[in-house]
Amino acid sequence: MTKKNKHISALNEQGGVPDPEITNAAHIAFIKQKRKKQLSAKALTAAIIKGDITALSRAITLVESQNPEHYKKASAIIQRCLEHANASTRIGITGVPGVGKSTFIEAFGSYLTTLGKKVAVLAVDPSSTVTKGSILGDKTRMEALVNNPNAFIRPSASGNALGGVARKTREAIILCEAAGFDTIIIETVGVGQSETAVHSMVDFFLLLKLAGAGDELQGIKRGIIEMADAIAINKADGDNIKAAKLAKVEFNRALHLYPQKASGWTPKVTLCSALKHEGIDKIWELLSAYITQTKSNGFFEHHRQEQNKFWLMQTIEEQLNQRFFNHTKIKTALAEQLALVAQNKTTPFAAAEYLLALEKAL
Amino acid sequence: MTKKNKHISALNEQGGVPDPEITNAAHIAFIKQKRKKQLSAKALTAAIIKGDITALSRAITLVESQNPEHYKKASAIIQRCLEHANASTRIGITGVPGVGKSTFIEAFGSYLTTLGKKVAVLAVDPSSTVTKGSILGDKTRMEALVNNPNAFIRPSASGNALGGVARKTREAIILCEAAGFDTIIIETVGVGQSETAVHSMVDFFLLLKLAGAGDELQGIKRGIIEMADAIAINKADGDNIKAAKLAKVEFNRALHLYPQKASGWTPKVTLCSALKHEGIDKIWELLSAYITQTKSNGFFEHHRQEQNKFWLMQTIEEQLNQRFFNHTKIKTALAEQLALVAQNKTTPFAAAEYLLALEKAL
Repeated sequence: MTKKNKHISALNEQGGVPDPEITNAAHIAFIKQKRKKQLSAKALTAAIIKGDITALSRAITLVESQNPEHYKKASAIIQRCLEHANASTRIGITGVPGVGKSTFIEAFGSYLTTLGKKVAVLAVDPSSTVTKGSILGDKTRMEALVNNPNAFIRPSASGNALGGVARKTREAIILCEAAGFDTIIIETVGVGQSETAVHSMVDFFLLLKLAGAGDELQGIKRGIIEMADAIAINKADGDNIKAAKLAKVEFNRALHLYPQKASGWTPKVTLCSALKHEGIDKIWELLSAYITQTKSNGFFEHHRQEQNKFWLMQTIEEQLNQRFFNHTKIKTALAEQLALVAQNKTTPFAAAEYLLALEKAL
Repeated sequence: MTKKNKHISALNEQGGVPDPEITNAAHIAFIKQKRKKQLSAKALTAAIIKGDITALSRAITLVESQNPEHYKKASAIIQRCLEHANASTRIGITGVPGVGKSTFIEAFGSYLTTLGKKVAVLAVDPSSTVTKGSILGDKTRMEALVNNPNAFIRPSASGNALGGVARKTREAIILCEAAGFDTIIIETVGVGQSETAVHSMVDFFLLLKLAGAGDELQGIKRGIIEMADAIAINKADGDNIKAAKLAKVEFNRALHLYPQKASGWTPKVTLCSALKHEGIDKIWELLSAYITQTKSNGFFEHHRQEQNKFWLMQTIEEQLNQRFFNHTKIKTALAEQLALVAQNKTTPFAAAEYLLALEKAL
């Protein structure tokens, strides 16, 4: 091919053919126009305080992001939201899969909105991933609540470390409160350590159980009954009512195994049928009585401050441990020391001292 | 008074008056001879391994000492004792005051010595001081065991920090084992966090309870039933037997509230009367069955290694926290940050980050 021939190549015959869409300047302008505006922390906060749900969602996404820039922005928003937060009632709800948590939250949340409440539903589920189908992930199970203008539903932040997920949820609570939600429901599954984390971020902890035989009492996660301020026996309808009443007696007996709570509140057992919307009002009555009692005896505020202190100390401890155990040299030395302990050649205390001295010298 | 007069002062008339005892050279030599010899770590260890109780007591005193030199020597002894340790059965015993712990341990320990066992009894009671009368402090309550050549009783190390007391007890266990004690009983009171500490240093955990009405079930420390491998209802004699049998049913029900233990062992409830030496053999039978089962399924050794790992990690965590929170600047800043959190001006997480950054810059 000669230079002369070049100009007659078909490849240069573009007359009448428009640029492909993606390089079309007009189209790019159109896409940019449609794209979400990157609001500043200040602007996002202002929108959240006005109750803008889109702004709230975006801020929670920033909280959940792994991107340090996003997290910095999220921190600035939370800082600004703080003075508008903390005025809500925070309710933890747990129960094993199959107990009807989604149906219950849908019924309970909808009922609360009829009382004029604004309800935000969050979840703590460290094991959840998009593919595994996290709790609340399938919003179709809460259709009525999803479409309710006074409700906001957000699935669990993903992540395998409970500490991280719990922190994100704590921060999401602040954002929801700043957006005007006065009732925050935190859902968690009835397995693992997540109940303890949820218990330490709510004012009231509700355990959902099923009516059933004595078998039902087995398999209760250690310590969960102890954390409960109330146990609601769900699906107490139709042929189930008799069993539910029996279960109520059993659970009342179980609750008596524990000493008086610091709140001064005596945990209650109640029956409900989320499906038939029965007994839901009773649970709210209970909860209101709890809030009134603990606000008047000072426990409510005291408890929140204790929770704050717990999270502060917890975060420091976690970070100190991470700093320590993330040293490559410490990792190697820890494995060696554990082997020596197992071989009965050193004590756990001497091994710990060795590792602490090693880290100090690093 | 003139210089001349000085020599006739009665103060100089000492002829015929011997030196006071304390400056009498012969008496000093006598005291020195009586004084305990300061054996080296090597010599003390050799004596311990031969089963010398005096040497064992001295080594435990070194472990308990606040003097760093003593502790250094103690560490050297423990290190030398390690290869002779770990072959015992470690039993934790707890129960509220009044349940008859001393009488039970006296009966149980004496029974074990009739089986040819060598029994060491230690205690964990962080709140004990000499004046307050620590558990086991009053050895007269265990007269038979105290005078038994195959038993060794040692009151709780003093100190307010559970971590320190627990560590000293763990180290005393090693020393007792090296001295040939094949059964170690660790007593603790039924209050506070000390049960958890004891639970993490024993193979088998026994809860002593009293026969009684439903009231008895109240006031059970949270989580203690859960830790128990067996519950022995003491004072099950005379008019008490019926109530004790009822209590057995109640406790069996309570035990069923908890899921299967990792050991594969189903906790048992049994009756006894320590005073009448009844049912004591049953408890040893139970315990032997537990040891056989957990040794054959591998849990016994696995559990000990998990305990070692727990103590190693626990010690590191404690020390890291101490290092951190002992900085004067951190103390001041922590108080400030907590106040800001309480005033809703910062979050626990932001406060924690601030403190961590502050410490890193120190």
